[in-house]
Amino acid sequence: MQIDKLIRAIRELNNPSALGLDTRLQFVPKSFSRPYLEAKRSAEAVFAFNSALLSGLRDLIPCVKIQAAYYELMGLDGIACLSKTIHEAHRLDYVVIVDAKRGDIGATASAYSEAYLASGAPFPADFLTVNPYLGSDGILPFLSDCKKTGRGIFTLLKTSNPSSGEFQDLLASDGRPFYDHVADKIALWGEGLKGEEGYYSVGAVVGATYPKQGEALRARLPHTFFLLPGYGAQGAVAADLAGCFDAAGEGAIVAASRSLICAHQRAGTDDFVSAARDEALRMKGELNDAIRTKGI
Amino acid sequence: MQIDKLIRAIRELNNPSALGLDTRLQFVPKSFSRPYLEAKRSAEAVFAFNSALLSGLRDLIPCVKIQAAYYELMGLDGIACLSKTIHEAHRLDYVVIVDAKRGDIGATASAYSEAYLASGAPFPADFLTVNPYLGSDGILPFLSDCKKTGRGIFTLLKTSNPSSGEFQDLLASDGRPFYDHVADKIALWGEGLKGEEGYYSVGAVVGATYPKQGEALRARLPHTFFLLPGYGAQGAVAADLAGCFDAAGEGAIVAASRSLICAHQRAGTDDFVSAARDEALRMKGELNDAIRTKGI
Repeated sequence: MQIDKLIRAIRELNNPSALGLDTRLQFVPKSFSRPYLEAKRSAEAVFAFNSALLSGLRDLIPCVKIQAAYYELMGLDGIACLSKTIHEAHRLDYVVIVDAKRGDIGATASAYSEAYLASGAPFPADFLTVNPYLGSDGILPFLSDCKKTGRGIFTLLKTSNPSSGEFQDLLASDGRPFYDHVADKIALWGEGLKGEEGYYSVGAVVGATYPKQGEALRARLPHTFFLLPGYGAQGAVAADLAGCFDAAGEGAIVAASRSLICAHQRAGTDDFVSAARDEALRMKGELNDAIRTKGI
Repeated sequence: MQIDKLIRAIRELNNPSALGLDTRLQFVPKSFSRPYLEAKRSAEAVFAFNSALLSGLRDLIPCVKIQAAYYELMGLDGIACLSKTIHEAHRLDYVVIVDAKRGDIGATASAYSEAYLASGAPFPADFLTVNPYLGSDGILPFLSDCKKTGRGIFTLLKTSNPSSGEFQDLLASDGRPFYDHVADKIALWGEGLKGEEGYYSVGAVVGATYPKQGEALRARLPHTFFLLPGYGAQGAVAADLAGCFDAAGEGAIVAASRSLICAHQRAGTDDFVSAARDEALRMKGELNDAIRTKGI
């Protein structure tokens, strides 16, 4: 099961970080993109940039999260770039999360599952992010493929953005916030999909920007692996997300995109791979320090 | 503004129906798809099928809803087919809804908007369906493009599927269901985007399968145009959705996919255009009867 592969890959590199490839053309140094732009192949500049980062960070980072939106905005060439990026990440044996936040009902959820999670999927993801707004029949079709292929999903739970509370934090008549009810279902959906390492193939997206909620959710969902966005560019620091890890310092992975893929801009260099490596090492150290000293 | 174009197009053809192109290869008659399959161009069979339906129904139906999932599952060729279908629908002057239920935060919502709603979008939609789970900062980036281009969104509100109540109907501490709180925001997001016909560019997806909730929402959201899925294959009949129309018999459009694009299978013929026309005429009559006799 891919949830076991993810946990073991993090353990092996001692790094609970995911490289977020939210790549925009303007993030790519001009010295690198120029030949592609001159040939009017801008999506290929993005792929070459992604590919260099994937090769250059493989000994440091176990997992990649590819944000579909940044490829869709480039049209057909962008989708080709998405596909090539997914396949290159698999070739390098990363655990591959496709962050597409898909969500639809019944037959249409099955269609999305065919696209990303089923055996023979054209955009094969180890994990796909999904949206729970439509309830169980928007989720179960994905799980039917996950059972067959060992792949998994991360369901939006408490998201990292400033307005995530507008709906997610609404108090229900039982006094619990709305996202708590989603958490109940996420735990239920995971049953029957538990891996050898004790976690379900049904994970949850929990914003690192909401540390108290993250800590409470960790306690309530002992078998749910967390994908934590919000670190770095969105403002969360390592201490904020220590509470999302379990007692063994596992059970979560921190996604960082701009802080890694734009590290060269802050460093004032075109050597984006070296700049990303420096930041990846700094991030790894900071995360491990925070996890180790949690509660001390 | 495209919301005005939609309302006027429905009025002109006296038909509040949208053709749902949720096209799977197995829906296409074998006699039609055979040459494409022999050339290993199955996505082109889907496009040719869509194209024949679009041409054949244009004098009857004003609007098309294209479900992204069915194209993503065919991979790159499928996305090319999606793109060609979108452009063919525009060429024939349909109002084009891309049903992709996208939803993400801030910068990523902007990226989706660039893909579908911005000027020069590679997959240009008059309307995009979006998911509200992330709150305002998952929606406002779309509206910033809608202001510039006149395009619009349909936000999921009370969906048509059996489990839509799991989260959407949860009672909040004020005694109102969760979807009612989403409705408040949908009305707020629409302000400043009102067209000449009195409706906002921010519409709502309301399942025809929940007639009472639809009627109550119609009363609460006088300027919000409704996209009504659930008719036909999902079980809703015309009487169920009459309450979603306004006093003038406007303010909503009914999406039907399988009942139209698979009409030939029920009719036992390969002439899918004629079968779809027969069903479109039947549906148009049934809807208009139900709207006209509402409340009598």
